[in-house]
Amino acid sequence: MKLLVINAGSSSVKYQLYDMTDESVLAKGLVERIGMDSSILTHKPTGKEEVTEVSEILEHTTAIRKVLDKLIDKECGVLASVDEIQAVGHRVVHGGEVFKGSALVTGEVKSEIRRLFDLAPLHNPPAVLGITAAEKNMPGVPQVVAFDTAFHQTMEEKVFLYPIPKVLYKKHHVRRYGAHGTSHEYVSKVAAEYLDRPLEDLKIITCHIGNGGSLTAVKGGVSMDTSMGLTPLEGLMMGTRSGDLDPAVVTFVMNKEELSLSEVNSMLNKHSGLLAISGSSSDMRDITDGMAEGDPNATLAFEMYEYRLRKYIGSYAAAMDGVDVIVFTAGIGENSVVVREKVCENLTYLGVEVDPELNKIRSGEPRRISTPNSKVEVLVIPTNEELMIARDTYRIVQENQ
Amino acid sequence: MKLLVINAGSSSVKYQLYDMTDESVLAKGLVERIGMDSSILTHKPTGKEEVTEVSEILEHTTAIRKVLDKLIDKECGVLASVDEIQAVGHRVVHGGEVFKGSALVTGEVKSEIRRLFDLAPLHNPPAVLGITAAEKNMPGVPQVVAFDTAFHQTMEEKVFLYPIPKVLYKKHHVRRYGAHGTSHEYVSKVAAEYLDRPLEDLKIITCHIGNGGSLTAVKGGVSMDTSMGLTPLEGLMMGTRSGDLDPAVVTFVMNKEELSLSEVNSMLNKHSGLLAISGSSSDMRDITDGMAEGDPNATLAFEMYEYRLRKYIGSYAAAMDGVDVIVFTAGIGENSVVVREKVCENLTYLGVEVDPELNKIRSGEPRRISTPNSKVEVLVIPTNEELMIARDTYRIVQENQ
Repeated sequence: MKLLVINAGSSSVKYQLYDMTDESVLAKGLVERIGMDSSILTHKPTGKEEVTEVSEILEHTTAIRKVLDKLIDKECGVLASVDEIQAVGHRVVHGGEVFKGSALVTGEVKSEIRRLFDLAPLHNPPAVLGITAAEKNMPGVPQVVAFDTAFHQTMEEKVFLYPIPKVLYKKHHVRRYGAHGTSHEYVSKVAAEYLDRPLEDLKIITCHIGNGGSLTAVKGGVSMDTSMGLTPLEGLMMGTRSGDLDPAVVTFVMNKEELSLSEVNSMLNKHSGLLAISGSSSDMRDITDGMAEGDPNATLAFEMYEYRLRKYIGSYAAAMDGVDVIVFTAGIGENSVVVREKVCENLTYLGVEVDPELNKIRSGEPRRISTPNSKVEVLVIPTNEELMIARDTYRIVQENQ
Repeated sequence: MKLLVINAGSSSVKYQLYDMTDESVLAKGLVERIGMDSSILTHKPTGKEEVTEVSEILEHTTAIRKVLDKLIDKECGVLASVDEIQAVGHRVVHGGEVFKGSALVTGEVKSEIRRLFDLAPLHNPPAVLGITAAEKNMPGVPQVVAFDTAFHQTMEEKVFLYPIPKVLYKKHHVRRYGAHGTSHEYVSKVAAEYLDRPLEDLKIITCHIGNGGSLTAVKGGVSMDTSMGLTPLEGLMMGTRSGDLDPAVVTFVMNKEELSLSEVNSMLNKHSGLLAISGSSSDMRDITDGMAEGDPNATLAFEMYEYRLRKYIGSYAAAMDGVDVIVFTAGIGENSVVVREKVCENLTYLGVEVDPELNKIRSGEPRRISTPNSKVEVLVIPTNEELMIARDTYRIVQENQ
C-alpha cells in the first residue's frame, strides 16, 4: 500500500509518500508561503534531484493538487497515477480527551477536531484545511488523523489535573494534554528495540528537544507525565517560548506593561526563551557558537536551557522512581553534542556516564552514547513522526477495510 | 541582652521575647484582629498561664504598646521595665536584590523596604507598620530587619532569571526571589549540626511545607535554587495556592471567564491548591483524614500534592547532582507522617529508605527518620524562624555598638 502523510500548517504543507510494503519513502517535500505572494514547492523524489517551483498558491486545496502533480510528473514523479495512493495520514496537534489514538476521518471526527479549535487555535484549523484539501483532491481515499496529544492520554488524573478550581476542567477542559506524542511514542519504542529489552519493563525519559521541546516520562511504554501542558508553552525553555514561570509573572507583567491577553501570550510564545536571553537567536546552533566565542548572553541562554532541562530529567526520575533510559531526539537532541554533554555531566548521581567520543558521532541511526558502566542507557534516536503516522494510517485503513 | 522579635501582618502582630544569654524565650504571644471590632491579645509568659485580653486595637502602635504592657505586667509580665529590651528584630517578607542579609534599620533601609512594596504588596507594608510602631514605643532601641528572601540571594543568574525578555528584569525586577529563607537557612544549619558534618560539604534539600510551602536546594550552605519565584505562588501545590501551572492557563482562564488581573490572582492564590481539589479543606490534616476515610477528592488532592512535591525533590537532586540530606520542616513537614512516608516511598532510586517507626515519632526535636542503610539522610527538623531572627538581631546590634 502506498500512502501520503500530510502535515498542514497555516501557510505550509509538508508531505511524505510511503510505500508500506517496506516502509520506504518514495518522495517528500514541502509547500511554503501558501496564500502569500510567491509560494514555493520543494519536491524531493528518493534517489533523484530535488526540484523547486515558485508559483501562486492561494490555499491548501491547490497546494495538495500541485503536490499530486509532482508525484505523477514524468520527470520528477514517482507514481504512474494518483490512484496508487490508497490512504492519507494527517498530523493533528490537538485531540483533546476524545482521541486516545489515531482515527479514521469521518464527519464526526472532523466536527470533534473543530470543537477543539479553542484548545489549539493556531494548529487545529490548518489541519482541517489539510484534511478537506486531501478529500477534495483524492475523493474516496480513506484519511486517518494522528494526534500529538493521543500518546499522553494515559496520564493519570493526579498528573494531568492542575491544582486550580475543578470547574475549569469540567467547563473549559483545562488540564495537561502535552504534545509531540507521536515522537515520544516512536523513540521510546525504538529505544526498547535498540536495547533489545521489553518496553513494558523500562522507565524511559524521552527528550524531544527542537525549537519547541518537551520531555516525557514513559513508564512501561505509556506516557506517565509530560512537560507541555494545556498549551505548548509549559515546560522547558525553548527557542522563543519561556516554558515554566511563576504564574504570577503573567499578571505582574500584564499590569506593569499594560499588556492585553494576546500581547502577553505573544511575548511568552514568540519573544522569550533562548531568543530573549541571548538577545540574538532562538537557534541552539547560534547559541552554542556564541558560547564558544565567549558571548556572555549566549552562554547564559545555554546555561539556563541546560539547567532547566536537567531539572526536568531529575523530576521525571522521581516521578517514575528511577530511570533506565534517557533518549535525546529532535533537532537539538539529535544534533547538539554540547547540550547532551552538559546535561549528562551533572547527572552522575543517577549513574549516568556518557562516552565523549560516542557523543560526538553524527549519524542518522539510533545510537548509544553512554559507556558500558553507565547505570542509565543514554541514547540518541532520530525521531520519525511521519513514519509513525504512516504506520497508524496503514493499520487503521487495514482494520477498516 | 533581651530582645523582642516581631512578625507584623496586616491585622496581626506575633512576638517573642528572647534572653540571648541562653537564647531562652521569656514570653511570646499574638495580637489578632487589629483594626477590627474586638482585637484579641494572647500572651504566654514561659512557665506561667496564658492570658487572653479582648479590646479595641485600631492600629499597630497600640498593638505593640499593649504587648509591652503585658511584658511588664505585675501578674503575667516577665520584665521589670521596657528599658530591658535592648533590641527589636522584625521579619520582612521581601528584601528584593538590595538585602542579602539582615540589616540595622535606618531611614534608608525603611525607604528601600517601601520601594519593594510593588513586589510584595500584601506583606511589606505591614512590616513597615510594625517597625514604625516599635520605634514609637521604644525610641532609641536599635531595630533589625530580617528578610525572607535574603538567604536566596546566593542564587546564580541562570537560576534566578526567567526566560522572558530581559527588559522585564531591568525595568521591573522580575526574577526569582524565593521565600521562607530564614527557615531554609535555619534547618539546613541544624541539619549539619545534627549530623555532625560540615555544612560546606552537604547537598541538602529543605522542604518547608506548611499552608504555604517551598523547597530549597542548599549546596555548601547556600541557597542554590528555591521553588517560590517572583511571588509565593510558584512552586509546590499549597493549601490554597496552585503552585506551578502552564503560564498559558492564566490567560486562557482570564479569557474564558472574563476575569480581571486581581480576580485571577485571587483565584490562584486563595481558591486553588488542596482546597480546590479536595473541595473541602486547605488543611493537610483534613486531607489525610479524608483520605483515610476513603474520600476520593481528598485522596486526589493528597496524591497531586505528594507527586508534585516529589518531583521537586527530584529536580533539585538533578540541580545539585545529588542529595545527601532531605529535611522536612514547618506544619506539614514536621507533623504529617503520611506525607513524609509517601514522598520517600518513591525515592528508592536515590537510595532513600525511611524507617516507618522513626517516621511515626512525634517530638519537638530534630530527628532522623531514615534507616542506617539509607543513602540519603532524611531528617525532621522543627523550624524556628524567630530564633534565627533573634540571632541575627543580636549579632547585628553587637556589631553596631
